[in-house]
Amino acid sequence: MDSAKIQALKTRLDGIAVEDDPALVRKKSRDFYWYSPVLKRVLDSVLGEIVVTPKTEDEVVRTLAAAFALDIPVTPRGAGTGNYGQAMPLAGGMVLDLHELSGIKDIGPGYVIAEAGALLGKIDAATRAHSGQELRMFPSTHRTASIGGFIAGGSGGVGSIRWGGLRNLGNVTRTRVVTMEAHPRVLDLTGDDIAKVAHAYGTNGIITECEVPLTVAYDWIDAIIAFDGMERATAFADALGREDGILLKELSVMGPGVGHRYFSQHGRFLTADQAAVLIMVAPHSASALEAFTRRHRGETVFRSDLIDAETAKSLPPLFELTWNHTTLVARRVEPALTYLQTLYPYPDHVAAVAKMGRLIGDEMMDHLEFIRFDSNIVCSGLPLIRFTTEERLDEIIRIFEDNGCLVFNPHRYTLEEGGMKRSDLGQLAFKREVDPKGLLNPGKMIAWDNPDFDFSDPRPYLFSQPAA
Amino acid sequence: MDSAKIQALKTRLDGIAVEDDPALVRKKSRDFYWYSPVLKRVLDSVLGEIVVTPKTEDEVVRTLAAAFALDIPVTPRGAGTGNYGQAMPLAGGMVLDLHELSGIKDIGPGYVIAEAGALLGKIDAATRAHSGQELRMFPSTHRTASIGGFIAGGSGGVGSIRWGGLRNLGNVTRTRVVTMEAHPRVLDLTGDDIAKVAHAYGTNGIITECEVPLTVAYDWIDAIIAFDGMERATAFADALGREDGILLKELSVMGPGVGHRYFSQHGRFLTADQAAVLIMVAPHSASALEAFTRRHRGETVFRSDLIDAETAKSLPPLFELTWNHTTLVARRVEPALTYLQTLYPYPDHVAAVAKMGRLIGDEMMDHLEFIRFDSNIVCSGLPLIRFTTEERLDEIIRIFEDNGCLVFNPHRYTLEEGGMKRSDLGQLAFKREVDPKGLLNPGKMIAWDNPDFDFSDPRPYLFSQPAA
Repeated sequence: MDSAKIQALKTRLDGIAVEDDPALVRKKSRDFYWYSPVLKRVLDSVLGEIVVTPKTEDEVVRTLAAAFALDIPVTPRGAGTGNYGQAMPLAGGMVLDLHELSGIKDIGPGYVIAEAGALLGKIDAATRAHSGQELRMFPSTHRTASIGGFIAGGSGGVGSIRWGGLRNLGNVTRTRVVTMEAHPRVLDLTGDDIAKVAHAYGTNGIITECEVPLTVAYDWIDAIIAFDGMERATAFADALGREDGILLKELSVMGPGVGHRYFSQHGRFLTADQAAVLIMVAPHSASALEAFTRRHRGETVFRSDLIDAETAKSLPPLFELTWNHTTLVARRVEPALTYLQTLYPYPDHVAAVAKMGRLIGDEMMDHLEFIRFDSNIVCSGLPLIRFTTEERLDEIIRIFEDNGCLVFNPHRYTLEEGGMKRSDLGQLAFKREVDPKGLLNPGKMIAWDNPDFDFSDPRPYLFSQPAA
Repeated sequence: MDSAKIQALKTRLDGIAVEDDPALVRKKSRDFYWYSPVLKRVLDSVLGEIVVTPKTEDEVVRTLAAAFALDIPVTPRGAGTGNYGQAMPLAGGMVLDLHELSGIKDIGPGYVIAEAGALLGKIDAATRAHSGQELRMFPSTHRTASIGGFIAGGSGGVGSIRWGGLRNLGNVTRTRVVTMEAHPRVLDLTGDDIAKVAHAYGTNGIITECEVPLTVAYDWIDAIIAFDGMERATAFADALGREDGILLKELSVMGPGVGHRYFSQHGRFLTADQAAVLIMVAPHSASALEAFTRRHRGETVFRSDLIDAETAKSLPPLFELTWNHTTLVARRVEPALTYLQTLYPYPDHVAAVAKMGRLIGDEMMDHLEFIRFDSNIVCSGLPLIRFTTEERLDEIIRIFEDNGCLVFNPHRYTLEEGGMKRSDLGQLAFKREVDPKGLLNPGKMIAWDNPDFDFSDPRPYLFSQPAA
């Protein structure tokens, strides 16, 4: 943008926070893309030119109208905790920072309505205080991530063992979206229409408000069950996930040594070669979990409700060692580590985990997250990888795929290459309708940029439009 | 019992309600066995001789000590709403009526502790008023059945689509049981030990107190979705059950015409040949259910939240048309109807339902109950059968079994023939320990009465002791 355009934008956005301080712009042009050595290389120089921070939906509407009139690309961001460069402005232009749009507008039985920039942890604090409720699911960045960013760029997380993913009908009840047109419209999307903007990185509308279901908040107990060997730990976790009467919020498995080596505080509860199952269980299911653990001869090495209050207070919540936080805490110890995102083929997932372990060997350390997926208990993986070269990383991905595993490649920044979101003709038509100039988060949707895009991809995707 | 023994009992039970009025004894010797024309024939003349109604656990202890000393058989009963003759005193003697033992002792986050005779509806009213909680599951006799009777003689019901059955770890947290010995002991059973007395008809200890988990109480919406044809209705229900994000409490399917013909009030919402899916859905999942119904081109013919308040008040809750209430309301219209209890083989259950319909023909009308079973969404059936002869009923059962369906025969009064509860050496050893004279509900456990009982039965059972 030349300075005339910037001035024109500032004039149109009079009264809205607009900043072009280079340090701030640089900071707001980043997310957690550096988890990936590939994205680190590719995206490191990406920069926006100006940061606009609306405080109300009206200000969002005014901002988008101005950007449309001036042909300025707009890349929205919530809290910037994504890992795939979702919030990074490939084409420069405007970073639309939504963190001030953070009001909690209504809480009722089973639901909360919050503005897009509201942090998940703040929402949970408010709903817990209001009526003992909490979000069904959240990423391990619970404290720092926004609800809008979660819906636009996430897929599930803590709670997915019970409720499935954001992809599932009912896990997001309504999204309010502002279109990128001369006169931006405000759309309330419900039912199947939510799929249009879920996990679309803000490429087809700016989410301003979200209505999501709540469930009852318990004082979840953190538990770590240790096993000799990955296979016993995986079999235990798989069987535990299938126990309909034991209420869990989280169920993950760390390969031998992972916990001991990388968990700065909880590591001391594990030996150097133990595999570990990390669990959040409701207090009234604790005795059933205990009985089930005895059946499997697991060793309960940690229970947050059985340690003294002083120690308990000094520990992070266990979920901050799961999902992508596992990668984060491991990288603090070994910065050369990176990761993959996989889905092992159901119903042979337990065997597939063992097989992939044998095939890849010491280059990989297992990290599994058990989730409910179309009602089946399946396991996804975020294995830690000792990074050597990008070629070897691609080769490892190919080995996974050749063995029937689905890989959601966290080393790509486009929706299609990331592999979670299907770009189909419906998605494309919706983008044409709400962003006719293609100004929203440009460069993230290949189907938009490439007129020869092949829509016939038979690969399964997490997020796809239901057949009409 | 001769009158001297009765007098001796009365003397020992001084201060406890003991009655031998023939009309009362007859009434208290009955349950809902007459659902089955077979049990009607076999059990119609069964009578106890005396009814003892303790008000406290201490009185239960005194009662059992007296019965032990005098060698009097004891058959416990809660509210007498069972259908398998569970509560009928085959050997005469004492009917132990536990309905006065009905206190609710504690309610906390996720749990309630209630005495065995507390009615499920009363427990739910109390937990809802206390903290917006309710039982995870209950039979369709919610208003009239007791918690102790449910655990001792039931298996699951409304809520099992979410939580599985009583058989599952975590769905009963603790049972307090009084033994039948010279000096009765009071045992608190937790974890795997609960399996000893669950669905054991009171043959191995008298349950006096139950701790069960609670979940959040919503203002559940009753919905009926109509389909042309059973196959579409079944496919819809099966797919809906697999939607992890749509919170249901009940999911059943009625074959073509069943609803129209037998539902005295809701019948008017259905045509004479429509199949119907009966649903209880949480209000915050209603819009997702709507979207899902549109995908399947189902016709929503009834929603309790969309009719006027006057009409709504005049209707029974939808769950009183499901589970064994379907049989009840159908028998009101056609008294010659009876039923079966089946479990269709997963994962081919939808096809199996269609196949059985073809094989049995007009003699049967479908009634399915979808439930979660070891984490799979499966369907159980309580098909309505036009009863002709006992031989034909047995033949129909054979046809089901020959086609891979499991039948829990509601026309048998023993645990083993009923087919839900496995009698193994562990069960037998426990009975020897807590009821050495075999005085508790005699005649209901074949393994106790028959020294040549074959424990090698390979058949799967709902309730079995976990391997040690």
